[in-house]
Amino acid sequence: MTKATSPTAGVIIIGNEILSGRTKDENLPYLAKALCEHGIPVREAHIIPDLEEVIVATVNAVRERCTYVFTTGGIGPTHDDITAASIAKAFGVPFIRHPEAAATLEAYYGDDINTARMRMADLPQDATLIPNPVSAAPGFRIGNVHVLAGVPRIMQAMFDGIVHTLTGGPPVLSRAVSATAREGDIAETLRTIQASYPSVDLGSYPFGLGNRIGTCIVGRTTDPTLLDDAMNTIAEMFQELGFTPSDTDPMATR
Amino acid sequence: MTKATSPTAGVIIIGNEILSGRTKDENLPYLAKALCEHGIPVREAHIIPDLEEVIVATVNAVRERCTYVFTTGGIGPTHDDITAASIAKAFGVPFIRHPEAAATLEAYYGDDINTARMRMADLPQDATLIPNPVSAAPGFRIGNVHVLAGVPRIMQAMFDGIVHTLTGGPPVLSRAVSATAREGDIAETLRTIQASYPSVDLGSYPFGLGNRIGTCIVGRTTDPTLLDDAMNTIAEMFQELGFTPSDTDPMATR
Repeated sequence: MTKATSPTAGVIIIGNEILSGRTKDENLPYLAKALCEHGIPVREAHIIPDLEEVIVATVNAVRERCTYVFTTGGIGPTHDDITAASIAKAFGVPFIRHPEAAATLEAYYGDDINTARMRMADLPQDATLIPNPVSAAPGFRIGNVHVLAGVPRIMQAMFDGIVHTLTGGPPVLSRAVSATAREGDIAETLRTIQASYPSVDLGSYPFGLGNRIGTCIVGRTTDPTLLDDAMNTIAEMFQELGFTPSDTDPMATR
Repeated sequence: MTKATSPTAGVIIIGNEILSGRTKDENLPYLAKALCEHGIPVREAHIIPDLEEVIVATVNAVRERCTYVFTTGGIGPTHDDITAASIAKAFGVPFIRHPEAAATLEAYYGDDINTARMRMADLPQDATLIPNPVSAAPGFRIGNVHVLAGVPRIMQAMFDGIVHTLTGGPPVLSRAVSATAREGDIAETLRTIQASYPSVDLGSYPFGLGNRIGTCIVGRTTDPTLLDDAMNTIAEMFQELGFTPSDTDPMATR
């Protein structure tokens, strides 16, 4: 894969706790939605352990393929927080104490500052700070890689503070049409409709809510006219097959 | 990375709906926990789009690195269900109608059988069926790759039906000790404890529940005696620093 002309994003979730099932990741859904709205669709996401060699290899592969990379996790004060040092290694730059980050941490912690907390000011050389309005310890950007916290509330605050620095393409629009038809009832017609709208990405998702079983078709494209045409055609398809279409997505995350 | 002597798993979540943020993945947490208990820790997970070239490349990379691979998603009857055909391509084998799968689908759907539904019987040559007790359309295994449904209820039923076929190592045990200490308060001592127990993976996770802020240390290892020793040492650390340790993980998923 090579870099596309439209901007793309890759997400790297770093943390043993996600791979063990102890923690359910909430950061990918947030980043995916926000980046889509900003016209930077997420093309790949990886969940990797707190292991330097894996972090280095994954970051270096994804930053080649995607316009923007976002990592979450591993930037706290404990021994298992090795993201910043690993990113320095990935970029082949020294890992040094950042004066501005150090000053921010000293001001925030006051008398509670200590060796472990100061370690959160050690960053790759020439990294640009990403402010942390929640708990002071900064994220950072180096090249096209944005290194964010793992705690969702902090990650979101960091991301919201830097989203204006990202150059997005046209926003990816989406529209859903659902009905109590089973996927197999509509699959052939839907295939024909997809062929007529090659630049609209039509996804078909079965749902089951109590006794109500059905299918939701989600269309995604940057072209609002094409999206409306395609989704109106989907609604007509449901009607012609004897189902009542609805403009809702029963399974969409809130 | 090469295959480790202890069995490992890689998980590949296939679906545009996860990368767009429309759907929150629930399959990785389930697989991660179940595989850990079976002594097959998940070492990497990837979330990829419904694109043949990406599925082929990811499956071929992960099946080299991990003892077992599990994919979820993309095995339904619609045009965007391209997982089975892509896996055939990854293995370089013909994509053919599987007689047993065809018979199962015909029996299940009766008069409702049609071209789209029959397509779910098209599998890589020599694939072994993974039964679907919920809705008939099977998953399958080829080599070390297990291809499961994306709908969590169906994925879980498929996985539960084949877990006995996997050769696990000793189960990965975990124990949590938490207290209302902040990570920076304990980081230095914790680093020393981790150095004393190199074969216990100690993860440090901050939590915030209302006004209660603290840190949960999760230890993971296959050795029950070492785990108890390490976690008792963590509990003593909290006490010596003036915090009351608890044997609970306030942020664990249920």
